Amino acid sequence: MPASHTSQEDLAARVQRALLNDCQLDPSKPLVAGVSGGPDSLSLLSLLSRLGWQVYAAHFDHHLRPESGAEAVWVAEKARKMGVPFLGGGAQVSELARAQRLSVEEAARQARYSFLFDCARQVSAQAVTVGHTASDQVETVLMHLLRGAGLSGLKGMAPLSLQEGWDRQIPLARPLLMIWREEIEQFCIENGLEPLQDASNADMAFFRNRLRHELIPILESYNPRFRPALLRTAEVLAGDWEFMESALDAAFSTLCKAQGAGYAVFDLAALRGLVPSLLRGLLRRACASLRPGLRDIDFDDIERAAKFIWQPTLTLKMNWVSGLRLFIEDDLLYLEEPGKAPLPAHWPQLAHTQIEYLEVPGQIELASGLILEAEWFQAAPADFWMCAADETWIDGANLELPLIVRSSQAGERFDPLGMAGRSQKLSDLWINAKIPHRARKLWPLVCSGERIAWLAGLRSSHAFQVGSASTEVVRLRLIRPGAG
Amino acid sequence: MPASHTSQEDLAARVQRALLNDCQLDPSKPLVAGVSGGPDSLSLLSLLSRLGWQVYAAHFDHHLRPESGAEAVWVAEKARKMGVPFLGGGAQVSELARAQRLSVEEAARQARYSFLFDCARQVSAQAVTVGHTASDQVETVLMHLLRGAGLSGLKGMAPLSLQEGWDRQIPLARPLLMIWREEIEQFCIENGLEPLQDASNADMAFFRNRLRHELIPILESYNPRFRPALLRTAEVLAGDWEFMESALDAAFSTLCKAQGAGYAVFDLAALRGLVPSLLRGLLRRACASLRPGLRDIDFDDIERAAKFIWQPTLTLKMNWVSGLRLFIEDDLLYLEEPGKAPLPAHWPQLAHTQIEYLEVPGQIELASGLILEAEWFQAAPADFWMCAADETWIDGANLELPLIVRSSQAGERFDPLGMAGRSQKLSDLWINAKIPHRARKLWPLVCSGERIAWLAGLRSSHAFQVGSASTEVVRLRLIRPGAG
Repeated sequence: MPASHTSQEDLAARVQRALLNDCQLDPSKPLVAGVSGGPDSLSLLSLLSRLGWQVYAAHFDHHLRPESGAEAVWVAEKARKMGVPFLGGGAQVSELARAQRLSVEEAARQARYSFLFDCARQVSAQAVTVGHTASDQVETVLMHLLRGAGLSGLKGMAPLSLQEGWDRQIPLARPLLMIWREEIEQFCIENGLEPLQDASNADMAFFRNRLRHELIPILESYNPRFRPALLRTAEVLAGDWEFMESALDAAFSTLCKAQGAGYAVFDLAALRGLVPSLLRGLLRRACASLRPGLRDIDFDDIERAAKFIWQPTLTLKMNWVSGLRLFIEDDLLYLEEPGKAPLPAHWPQLAHTQIEYLEVPGQIELASGLILEAEWFQAAPADFWMCAADETWIDGANLELPLIVRSSQAGERFDPLGMAGRSQKLSDLWINAKIPHRARKLWPLVCSGERIAWLAGLRSSHAFQVGSASTEVVRLRLIRPGAG
Repeated sequence: MPASHTSQEDLAARVQRALLNDCQLDPSKPLVAGVSGGPDSLSLLSLLSRLGWQVYAAHFDHHLRPESGAEAVWVAEKARKMGVPFLGGGAQVSELARAQRLSVEEAARQARYSFLFDCARQVSAQAVTVGHTASDQVETVLMHLLRGAGLSGLKGMAPLSLQEGWDRQIPLARPLLMIWREEIEQFCIENGLEPLQDASNADMAFFRNRLRHELIPILESYNPRFRPALLRTAEVLAGDWEFMESALDAAFSTLCKAQGAGYAVFDLAALRGLVPSLLRGLLRRACASLRPGLRDIDFDDIERAAKFIWQPTLTLKMNWVSGLRLFIEDDLLYLEEPGKAPLPAHWPQLAHTQIEYLEVPGQIELASGLILEAEWFQAAPADFWMCAADETWIDGANLELPLIVRSSQAGERFDPLGMAGRSQKLSDLWINAKIPHRARKLWPLVCSGERIAWLAGLRSSHAFQVGSASTEVVRLRLIRPGAG
């Protein structure tokens, strides 16, 4: 038996220390213990009770085996004998699995933890405790290792963790994480606990059993202290992971320029300045923020996104994982569910696809609270050609009124000011002005009859150019919300 | 065969890309290739030559097997046929091992790399290249994993690394690190290379062979893609390690307040503010800076030092590893070879243990350029009792001249000013003033005959107190270098 402790210290004292130090629990507040009735969880319950913690025994019946109902009664009776209040729950897990299209293992896990955290809320518990041991930890790390994993997998399970999917405040605690299965078995014998031997280990799959009984003994033939060595490796890597996470927190909050339902926007140049390890972590985190359910995003997907950031495709777009896509616009990297990322607020957009009439003087409202305004003047100011992009001056003499505001049509052409009447395809204009496709569809064009007078905020037309002979001019302008 | 590449890309093209990208080598500059004559190194040589690199074949004869001389001739002949210049070297490695008290494996490694880097300097090569493959990488990571390791072990070998022990400028490059052994074997067959099969793999120990032929196949029965998965894990962890190293660089340069031959001094409060992972890394690095030869400092030793930093022993001292010790003084953590850390420069110390005579007026020189000065005055200034610690005023009437400057004696007592003539043990005074043992031995005492007049810079004596009746007074003071 590999011993992680050097002294002859009592098991209860080690667990008490883990509860106080590693799990940071408060002896004056209640706890919920998930109890299947197997050796680990029964020992945990017994230890918590002996150590004087206010513990509730919570048992979940997965209804996966005919004897599960009897086992629930058995656990309740064990709790009663220990003087511990019992909370029972259950579900038809195989049906849940079918309905939710999950593996039975995963459906069982979700239903069980959901019940445990319900219990915790109900009794105002400070935490849910479960009986994962050092042996489980070694198996978990080994499984990750066999599959291929980064720090987040190799660090194994944490003694204390907040699992936001279950509860935003109440953490999950694992006070037996430094205790070996052999020690638990010994404890059961010494204390006459007589646990259930094949209790609802619904998540104990064949693969894990093979690791336990076949692979780990082989690995121990290479290093008799393999198990404590791997446990320690996990502990060290957990520290490294924690540090990386805090660095990622900082990087994410600096580099993420906007975030909302279905999208996140990052500073592209700053992404390119990150060391590869941070860039990978940030991509992983960005993906998790849009797809919280997605577990274990693939290394290749991360590398594909990193490569796109470094060497974007010509289209500046890439389909990524789980229906998400990446695109680059204006030195920003967008990650979105297609269509979810908003346009930059400074780009004018029609509020809808219908034509609108713009009287002079008059106003119409665009999307995002922008106002498009037309006003009569007797003359343009001397420096009108220097006006901001949000404003233009056109000759009013030959305008068909009211003006028409509409979106562009396929193949449409336009004769921009300064091009001496040579018309240009609108599509070329969009490209030159770096206006992406998604912004073109609702970009407002101000027209006199069939002729475009102004691509709002971008270019005005040669046809309505203000000259020295102009006696009545129209000022068109975009008024931004808050700009008065 | 696990394939890390998805295309049908040619081996040579992949190696060329690794040379240019992963190893960052310049095709216009020469290279040295370490060639044992085995499949990996012979393929490397052949590939470098085909790809048009200016390569020198360097072979080291370890003289560990009777046929090694013939093998050296054979490698030279192979190189000649490829049109590659050959550099041969050798040593009686078993004798070296005995002389240096190293394992034969380690002595072979040191002698070989020392030769390869000598060759590189000789031909002005930009790098030494060696034939480590992806298979070697997997075995290396697995060995570290079995032993128990942190990121620095699990990251495996780097495609490009500077090994300061061998050369401060010329790096070691491993262009085959993404090529599997099976691919190399195939390459050898296809190109008729006929490598030596048991060539000087002096570092190919029994343990590694067992991994290769026994353990890895077992692990592949759990995941057929175990080898590429572990290779990728190493790659990801290498990125994390690199990031941690850069964070450590920053932490080290901020927290290390002084460093010299045999010692390093750190800000204790700042050490306590580090996350555990950085503190561990910093301790590891501090140890490596004093003991560059020490490989793989033990996790327990790191934890012992971390615990000392958090909860120092009463003596504020701890013997650590490899003859180093840690101690705390004045909110600083010292790591030293015993006796190597200098005292803080502001503490006065005698330059030697002999008694010195101090005339009034007069000066003597202390250690670190400090001057101890005595001068006559007719009266002390009105606020003499407020003078700096570096200065004191004593009554000159009953002084035995010249004054004597000496170190303290065991059990010595002193009647400090303000204690109304009640004498105190010097040892208590040291403790109250937080003067550690190592500073006490040469602390200068200014005495009149047998009586202590001044503990330089700390306390003066009740016996020589300046009073209103004093008509001749002596000012004793420490003059610091640069303070004029």
